[in-house]
Amino acid sequence: MKLAIGVIGATGYTGYELLQLLHRHPRARLAWATSESSAGKRMSDLYPTPDDTPLLRQEDAPLAQADVVFLCLPHVASMEAVAQVRAAGVCAIDLSADFRLPDPAIYERWYGHAHTQPGLLAEAVYGLCEVNRAQIREAKLVGNPGCYPTTVNLGLWPLAKAGVLGPRVIADSKSGVSGAGRGLKLGSHFVEVNENFSPYSIGYSHRHIAEMELVLAPHVPGLSVTFSPHLLPVNRGILSTLYVDVDPSLSPAAVRDLYAGAYAGEPFVHLLPSGQVATLRHTAGSNRCAIGLTPLPTPGQWIVTASEDNLIKGASGQAVQNMNLMFGFEETAGLM
Amino acid sequence: MKLAIGVIGATGYTGYELLQLLHRHPRARLAWATSESSAGKRMSDLYPTPDDTPLLRQEDAPLAQADVVFLCLPHVASMEAVAQVRAAGVCAIDLSADFRLPDPAIYERWYGHAHTQPGLLAEAVYGLCEVNRAQIREAKLVGNPGCYPTTVNLGLWPLAKAGVLGPRVIADSKSGVSGAGRGLKLGSHFVEVNENFSPYSIGYSHRHIAEMELVLAPHVPGLSVTFSPHLLPVNRGILSTLYVDVDPSLSPAAVRDLYAGAYAGEPFVHLLPSGQVATLRHTAGSNRCAIGLTPLPTPGQWIVTASEDNLIKGASGQAVQNMNLMFGFEETAGLM
Amino acid sequence: MKLAIGVIGATGYTGYELLQLLHRHPRARLAWATSESSAGKRMSDLYPTPDDTPLLRQEDAPLAQADVVFLCLPHVASMEAVAQVRAAGVCAIDLSADFRLPDPAIYERWYGHAHTQPGLLAEAVYGLCEVNRAQIREAKLVGNPGCYPTTVNLGLWPLAKAGVLGPRVIADSKSGVSGAGRGLKLGSHFVEVNENFSPYSIGYSHRHIAEMELVLAPHVPGLSVTFSPHLLPVNRGILSTLYVDVDPSLSPAAVRDLYAGAYAGEPFVHLLPSGQVATLRHTAGSNRCAIGLTPLPTPGQWIVTASEDNLIKGASGQAVQNMNLMFGFEETAGLM
Amino acid sequence: MKLAIGVIGATGYTGYELLQLLHRHPRARLAWATSESSAGKRMSDLYPTPDDTPLLRQEDAPLAQADVVFLCLPHVASMEAVAQVRAAGVCAIDLSADFRLPDPAIYERWYGHAHTQPGLLAEAVYGLCEVNRAQIREAKLVGNPGCYPTTVNLGLWPLAKAGVLGPRVIADSKSGVSGAGRGLKLGSHFVEVNENFSPYSIGYSHRHIAEMELVLAPHVPGLSVTFSPHLLPVNRGILSTLYVDVDPSLSPAAVRDLYAGAYAGEPFVHLLPSGQVATLRHTAGSNRCAIGLTPLPTPGQWIVTASEDNLIKGASGQAVQNMNLMFGFEETAGLM
Repeated sequence: MKLAIGVIGATGYTGYELLQLLHRHPRARLAWATSESSAGKRMSDLYPTPDDTPLLRQEDAPLAQADVVFLCLPHVASMEAVAQVRAAGVCAIDLSADFRLPDPAIYERWYGHAHTQPGLLAEAVYGLCEVNRAQIREAKLVGNPGCYPTTVNLGLWPLAKAGVLGPRVIADSKSGVSGAGRGLKLGSHFVEVNENFSPYSIGYSHRHIAEMELVLAPHVPGLSVTFSPHLLPVNRGILSTLYVDVDPSLSPAAVRDLYAGAYAGEPFVHLLPSGQVATLRHTAGSNRCAIGLTPLPTPGQWIVTASEDNLIKGASGQAVQNMNLMFGFEETAGLM
Repeated sequence: MKLAIGVIGATGYTGYELLQLLHRHPRARLAWATSESSAGKRMSDLYPTPDDTPLLRQEDAPLAQADVVFLCLPHVASMEAVAQVRAAGVCAIDLSADFRLPDPAIYERWYGHAHTQPGLLAEAVYGLCEVNRAQIREAKLVGNPGCYPTTVNLGLWPLAKAGVLGPRVIADSKSGVSGAGRGLKLGSHFVEVNENFSPYSIGYSHRHIAEMELVLAPHVPGLSVTFSPHLLPVNRGILSTLYVDVDPSLSPAAVRDLYAGAYAGEPFVHLLPSGQVATLRHTAGSNRCAIGLTPLPTPGQWIVTASEDNLIKGASGQAVQNMNLMFGFEETAGLM
Repeated sequence: MKLAIGVIGATGYTGYELLQLLHRHPRARLAWATSESSAGKRMSDLYPTPDDTPLLRQEDAPLAQADVVFLCLPHVASMEAVAQVRAAGVCAIDLSADFRLPDPAIYERWYGHAHTQPGLLAEAVYGLCEVNRAQIREAKLVGNPGCYPTTVNLGLWPLAKAGVLGPRVIADSKSGVSGAGRGLKLGSHFVEVNENFSPYSIGYSHRHIAEMELVLAPHVPGLSVTFSPHLLPVNRGILSTLYVDVDPSLSPAAVRDLYAGAYAGEPFVHLLPSGQVATLRHTAGSNRCAIGLTPLPTPGQWIVTASEDNLIKGASGQAVQNMNLMFGFEETAGLM
Repeated sequence: MKLAIGVIGATGYTGYELLQLLHRHPRARLAWATSESSAGKRMSDLYPTPDDTPLLRQEDAPLAQADVVFLCLPHVASMEAVAQVRAAGVCAIDLSADFRLPDPAIYERWYGHAHTQPGLLAEAVYGLCEVNRAQIREAKLVGNPGCYPTTVNLGLWPLAKAGVLGPRVIADSKSGVSGAGRGLKLGSHFVEVNENFSPYSIGYSHRHIAEMELVLAPHVPGLSVTFSPHLLPVNRGILSTLYVDVDPSLSPAAVRDLYAGAYAGEPFVHLLPSGQVATLRHTAGSNRCAIGLTPLPTPGQWIVTASEDNLIKGASGQAVQNMNLMFGFEETAGLM
């Protein structure tokens, strides 16, 4: 018997991608989906697809008919909705930022809004599967990671965990436009983006820094993250070029061994051979994160390149991976 | 002494392109520019440019300080504005559709709005320079042609004028996204357009058919235009692939001679050698229309390919060409 | 036990796509793959992928260890290779043009090369699944259809079969760049294609016309196909805009019924609702062909829009669909 | 009387762009152009343009009929050609790397080839106009700067000159594909680049580092440049995101004043207002370099964003600017 899935907020790029993944999943079936803006319509009215899934109003969603609910809502809006799902006794995987940061004060500092569900926040697990697998298996509520932080955190986790990552991290990241959502704004207008390339929110101002600090800071005394997102004229994909210092006593081979050890057996981490760099194409359409390691001539200076498909490993794919862990499925089910 | 120019509606793609052309024009200077949505700002606030042109409210425009006013407003909105410009005794070049169609009934049929300035309409000249040059030289009010019709009309004019064009014309046209303007709509969202290609308004429904009929029908008894626009994932450029019948008694060389004769000395028509087809690249960034002629095996069946830069020859460049004609400048001034 | 697959010529875009499909197929397993240019390497040396499939020399391929061999070779080169596969008693699905046209004289006229395997040609079945399903089920050798003809033939088949398609067919087709292969040529250079759009091989010169005539001519007396391919600045996808005449006594509803009847139950034909047109996005990444029907005001004049993913339904996906038919699998196995 | 120009190697992207600029130049006229690969043809045979410039063999070029020769050859090949031009008593502007690095040993280290013209090298001036204007005015031979170094050097020059730039410079740079030339290689194939984004030559391996060290090292004790180029899916444009340390005793306003002072009156440097970042669109189609300054929270840490059009300010436009300086023209002639 297949797991029954509810999806709240199904019509953004993340929700649409999630539905495609769920339709192919061998152990799950979509029970219902909602849309604030398009209730009463079908997916095929909104996307060029034969998918005829009907869209309910959120308040009409039969929560209890689902075994797990995915929420693809904007931050702040998600808090209440997650509370209702959990109140119905149903597991929740939240793709917004609302349940990623365990400290409500940090949430408020970055998102400018008090957290109204501190109790739920306390039970939430940060769903970075390769790092928090054990806790995710026990979780009822997962805060699915942000797109950018997944590349940065997976790209640096082996160094951080081993205690050899230096405090200054520079993450020069580049993302496709789907990361900005399907809403209308001049910055997503074709003519403004095509044949262009733009930095934005640079200078310690982008909210995703909080998730990088969440994962890395406990292992890196004095961590200082400089994060520079840029908008790429492509539909999907993120590449982060990471400039880091590593304990200079480690040989290049030793650094590589740290990664090989940390990611041994990981189905969704593609550690590239020596001499290769990650590109968007390494991970497009997949749930993988590709990681390349390049030493600089000065001992201890490294460039780590890490890529992902922002809608899959950076959002809906990782959400399904979290579901697989929570319900004891093969971790790769529906994701290969 | 340079001609003083006013621009009403300077901040769309057409207006912006027009300002760039005017800044380089050796005989003209920008006197003022307006913007409904951005009055009080400067161009550099709206576009990544060092151009600091201040933007006035339309009602504050010192009409009489201009020798000629270009209007880059939506259709219907332009009617009143043109009337005010002309009432101030100033010449007008209107880039909207409002003064292109001399018959108010035809205007109303296609644009769904009665024409409120039939008197002015009677004095307006359709500004297709290669066809109406003599009248444009005498005009005080020019209706600047639409982007699509310029490729279709220039592509077929030599055949029509010679009376050898058959009645069935199929125009399969493809345009870059700037043709849809800078306004926000899902159809111009980067992710929706990029890696996509879409027909739209096919089946005798696009308004630009009226301009094709305007130019061609007087020379083609029983003319039937099938016009199919498509949206290309590029910023600018239009290519029209035209399927036409030509009097089969004309040899391929004779057909080519018709074009060579009709366009002899035309600075902005690039008639391609036999065997070549027009591409967007032939005309990108220029005020040219490129035309290729390809015969089919059946005598009298031809494919004409015609391209232009939709923002230049298809809009602002042709508007400047019209100004050059109206004021007795070199026709190519500021356009090479 | 899974069907054993051999792939000859695995490293072009078609071969690569085929391997991806086969890796996901529930009833098949890749037994071996060859590459002329890259024998001795692995797929991961040639593409940014974790796929470590080793590449054999063609002459080292253990033909008899396969139940079916897919050939992704250039035309002419494929003739001999197919003969060897068949001589080993193994079924063959040929993705080149060599076994599509049953008449060797027609093959020679379009491909400029005598057919060296007329005996095999006589046993080959043209693998347009929706049209030739019964014969494909019995075939040992399938000539997999060309990319462009699949859109044109599926787009017009219901009309042709019903005997209501007029003789003049104009197919204005647009294809992404992967259709031109991975070989190096100026016409596939990024800078030449990007922000450009070009017709090519127009005027009854493109070889794919032969396949359109193969499928449609038997049902359309006096058929005359005008086929105009264009190069789109996208990676994948074909859209054909088809201008056709239909028996004018048929109402629009009757025409639509013809399509609904012809394609009832077809898993890979997406007949769009009235008022919709096919776009690349309708079929990107899928094995579907999407078809839209638009009547013109003149009775009997229609525009049919048809799209596909050129590497899937237009090549490797349809090849797998053919395999599914030949071996009695679910027709959709590995393709949803 | 107009300056007579010769162009050696006119048919690459740089040469083509140069010809366009020269055709528009009010004080110069093209006397002749050469092409190794296409001698005997015309530009219009190679590009979709009405430009009918005939192409000579290099050995047939009437050197002495030119007042100045631009060389757009690959490195190493340019050495001999420049020697011939200078031997004919004609000024030379070399767009290759052969006359950029005054120390032959450094040239050999980065380019793997001994410099055969050390005497000429001694007379060459590095043509970074904003930095070496006085020497360029007196030069007979200019080594035109590389595309990437122009963004990095102009982006950091005010800090270096003032002696306040820290030794560790990280330049994360992104370039359009025209920077890789018109030659055929898999890395410039449309399908490989489009919807992709790739780092390359990272880790102190790209030759352009030598030019950054040339300009900056004399002012920055212990300079260490980390330079990471990336390939963007756009035709043209470079953006460099520069991570630098500045003397922390300087306030943000003081740092901005350094730039304003260093670039006061510079026609081709667009220093962006506080809070803005450089994008490709700021400089596309222009000879400008746009520079944005963003402080980080830690005093003394800055991000400098710098963009240019790689074919204009990064190559042919700067070459014309150098010509203007050498011959006493308005520095902006032909470049606005």
